[in-house]
Amino acid sequence: MKTLNIESLVAELKELIGEDRVSQNETVLEQHSKDESYHTPILPDVVVFPKTTEEVSRIMKLAQKYETPVVPFGIGSSLEGHVIPIKKGISLDFTLMNKILEIREKDLLVVVQPGVTRIQLNQALKSYGLFFPVDPGADATLGGMAATGASGTTTVKYGTMRDQVQDLEVVLADGTIIHTGNMAAKSSSGYQLTGLFVGSEGTLGCFTKLTLKVHGLPEFVMAARAVFPTIEDAVNAVVDVRQAGIPVARAELVDEQSMHVINAYSQTNFPEKPTLLFEFHGNESGLMEDVRLTKQILEDHNCRDFIYETDQAKRNQLWKIRHHMAYAFIHTYRGRKFMATDVCVPISELAGAIYHARKALFKSGIPGGIAGHVGDGNFHISLMIDTNNEDEIMRIKKLNQELIKYAIERGGTCTGEHGVGIGKKPYQILEHGTAFEFMKKIKDVFDPKGILNPGKIF
Amino acid sequence: MKTLNIESLVAELKELIGEDRVSQNETVLEQHSKDESYHTPILPDVVVFPKTTEEVSRIMKLAQKYETPVVPFGIGSSLEGHVIPIKKGISLDFTLMNKILEIREKDLLVVVQPGVTRIQLNQALKSYGLFFPVDPGADATLGGMAATGASGTTTVKYGTMRDQVQDLEVVLADGTIIHTGNMAAKSSSGYQLTGLFVGSEGTLGCFTKLTLKVHGLPEFVMAARAVFPTIEDAVNAVVDVRQAGIPVARAELVDEQSMHVINAYSQTNFPEKPTLLFEFHGNESGLMEDVRLTKQILEDHNCRDFIYETDQAKRNQLWKIRHHMAYAFIHTYRGRKFMATDVCVPISELAGAIYHARKALFKSGIPGGIAGHVGDGNFHISLMIDTNNEDEIMRIKKLNQELIKYAIERGGTCTGEHGVGIGKKPYQILEHGTAFEFMKKIKDVFDPKGILNPGKIF
Ligand SMILES: Cc1cc2nc3c(=O)[nH]c(=O)nc-3n(C[C@H](O)[C@H](O)[C@H](O)COP(=O)(O)OP(=O)(O)OC[C@H]3O[C@@H](n4cnc5c(N)ncnc54)[C@H](O)[C@@H]3O)c2cc1C
Ligand SMILES: Cc1cc2nc3c(=O)[nH]c(=O)nc-3n(C[C@H](O)[C@H](O)[C@H](O)COP(=O)(O)OP(=O)(O)OC[C@H]3O[C@@H](n4cnc5c(N)ncnc54)[C@H](O)[C@@H]3O)c2cc1C
Repeated sequence: MKTLNIESLVAELKELIGEDRVSQNETVLEQHSKDESYHTPILPDVVVFPKTTEEVSRIMKLAQKYETPVVPFGIGSSLEGHVIPIKKGISLDFTLMNKILEIREKDLLVVVQPGVTRIQLNQALKSYGLFFPVDPGADATLGGMAATGASGTTTVKYGTMRDQVQDLEVVLADGTIIHTGNMAAKSSSGYQLTGLFVGSEGTLGCFTKLTLKVHGLPEFVMAARAVFPTIEDAVNAVVDVRQAGIPVARAELVDEQSMHVINAYSQTNFPEKPTLLFEFHGNESGLMEDVRLTKQILEDHNCRDFIYETDQAKRNQLWKIRHHMAYAFIHTYRGRKFMATDVCVPISELAGAIYHARKALFKSGIPGGIAGHVGDGNFHISLMIDTNNEDEIMRIKKLNQELIKYAIERGGTCTGEHGVGIGKKPYQILEHGTAFEFMKKIKDVFDPKGILNPGKIF
Repeated sequence: MKTLNIESLVAELKELIGEDRVSQNETVLEQHSKDESYHTPILPDVVVFPKTTEEVSRIMKLAQKYETPVVPFGIGSSLEGHVIPIKKGISLDFTLMNKILEIREKDLLVVVQPGVTRIQLNQALKSYGLFFPVDPGADATLGGMAATGASGTTTVKYGTMRDQVQDLEVVLADGTIIHTGNMAAKSSSGYQLTGLFVGSEGTLGCFTKLTLKVHGLPEFVMAARAVFPTIEDAVNAVVDVRQAGIPVARAELVDEQSMHVINAYSQTNFPEKPTLLFEFHGNESGLMEDVRLTKQILEDHNCRDFIYETDQAKRNQLWKIRHHMAYAFIHTYRGRKFMATDVCVPISELAGAIYHARKALFKSGIPGGIAGHVGDGNFHISLMIDTNNEDEIMRIKKLNQELIKYAIERGGTCTGEHGVGIGKKPYQILEHGTAFEFMKKIKDVFDPKGILNPGKIF
């Protein structure tokens, strides 16, 4: 910030949008000082809750005048310090912009404000026979999900957030309002800005309206669980299922360590062995054929315990294994902080990468387990950090670094879905090479004064 | 160009890559003066045929020194004047960079040089049980297809070129070589440059290597033809099929005028009525259920003539209707030039847009027919222009303009797949508003001297 004009800025903000939506309350500042990760919290100077695009635009103009950092804030569920206001300034909380503006049934599109969460959207879509597929573990906001390029268990069939975003209304650093796309299913008109803004982590602009693709609820859904003697068997099986072209809707791996933590937390007694969870979406006859073929492939990889369920309650029961995982770790290791590695490798490299990761994990001696969206080649080690233990932090950093180097050397990425934030900054040049310089130049085009979420990505 | 240094440039080019791959031969210049459209040809100063990325980089450095325009050239099948060197300079022909470098079966990826054509790629993939889905009417190069953001009949299931490109090696205007992506199925690392370069029409850089997604050949394929009493029935039927969530792999419309031209050209006697062509990919039992449901929906829209085929030869026969269409027009109206409108609208607006387009076409009195990738809301009027008839050109321009305004007002785009080139430049501000200024700024980041395909898009 130019000078210590914070009081004058707050006064102007209050005048602009009213006292009640500009807060310097300690609890509110504290809530906006961190995300769900192990990164060190820092308090913003002030938290602002806009209700309209025009307000966001006016706030950005003010921020521009004061050269104050602005950090867009969804629900703060990100995992790499994305929303920590490391240069202080304004935390711009989109909670009050949480309306579903339009459900365009025929176009399979919805228009939402950024603060709408994925569960809220799915509840509204249900009666239309529609759903929104992207499902990060947390009930994140759609603005936050677009900004991190989130994905989840259904990405193997429906794609990532990037594949769902059709248009964004964006307020730029100087308050200018632009649209990046349109409502047509495809376009070859001009440069595609939508894909540039998706995954920009609040560093290029604030999303104030999102047009998203939605999908028809599948006629028939089947879930399956397959248990393997070794993790190599499980991984090789999933690779072969993909290779056979079976259109699985979900393909998740949970290792024996994670199964153990889940059993203890959920008081279940699933086999504590490497487990694959599948889901299939389609019509009944098609699915029966897909499941039959899948079972055959899994058996070729020594799977002797395969069950499938079509009943919704039983399917939900199965999927609890996966959905409870992060919370099971957090609950089991109270006092520690959650940290997840997030590399993604070409699927041909997955078995090697997981083998390497397990060896590195055991060597580090830190409690953790491996799970992941293996249908996409993306996996996490869930780690529980004692943030007061310097030596442990060093060992975890080293472990993460080893995994990342392994992945990048084999054509993979340091982050499959969580994003860069603070945690993956050190690996950007290694991953992108010279292209990284051009990303910086693009940042300068949209935010020449560098006020939008400074210190993230770059 | 700075001064009239063309001779010195040509001499340096010859020294750089050898006499035989630097041509000023009249025929060669003429071949590189035009695309397949009605736009007026202009000769380049020189045509260069690089063989390696390093050569392309050195050529760009030379062009930078001379401030000479460089127009990347695939096979020149584009339809909006994309490759016409309107400011003269170098036409950079990628024909000799036509090697398939790697087929990564397990990853469902291929690495190709830009001059590989889509048919060439599919021939190589066949023995692996794989295929590449994007199929513009011409046997275009993959470099050209990525640069125009091409799509085709299978886009409704497999997506556009943008959805297939995983990584690009790009030589920038100053000769710098970058990579825009990686080999992992997804990534949230840094700004997504791949999507920015796809569709950039040679204005941001030269693609020298492409990593593309490929797909397993479907276990079972079924093609279907459905004839309707009116075009409204056909369009409404396709909208309902999409809405029902039936995963069609192709959904194409051909109107009665086009059917007539096709019959005359191919000596067939298909019903000269509005016709939908479908294709379904999957396993046999699943498809039988999909086809049954589709037939039911079509019948609700007055379809009384529905046939389907599984035999490959018969399927190919059916699809000839669509694949011969452009050539049927060109053959029927010899001496005239082919021109195709290319709007794409949200599917809920498709019936209205086609109704409007037909009225406008009949009013214009110009020979033409409507066809399109209606599953995506994209349709073309194929028009045959007498380029010597000023009045006719004016009427066609007006017709095109009317369609574009109609589409943009309803959330659509001026070009669903052909791109901007010269022909859609006048509509960029109307479509993109303030965002267009930022596209220009991005152009300046990558090509500050404006030597890459100048006069296109902007
Ligand atoms: C238990 C658990 C499991 C998780 N599992 C997954 C998973 O499977 N896949 C996955 O991808 N992620 C996962 N995450 C991470 C997290 O949920 C995602 O990153 C999510 O997208 C963050 O959304 P949010 O609303 O919390 O955004 P925030 O954390 O509030 O913000 C994230 C980033 O987006 C920016 N931002 C927020 N709103 C806007 C806006 N309107 N305009 C512009 N920028 C904005 C912020 O500045 C910040 O950089 C998980 C997290 C937890 C805690
Ligand atoms: C009969 C017919 C039917 C068609 N049907 C369709 C259709 O269904 N869908 C569709 O999308 N298009 C269609 N087209 C248009 C055309 O085939 C596509 O635009 C195609 O993508 C052009 O590829 P090309 O190799 O001919 O490229 P070119 O025409 O040579 O070049 C096109 C653009 O790409 C740039 N370019 C070429 N190579 C490179 C490179 N290596 N690096 C950077 N830039 C490069 C050029 O500078 C130019 O701007 C059709 C054309 C015809 C004649």
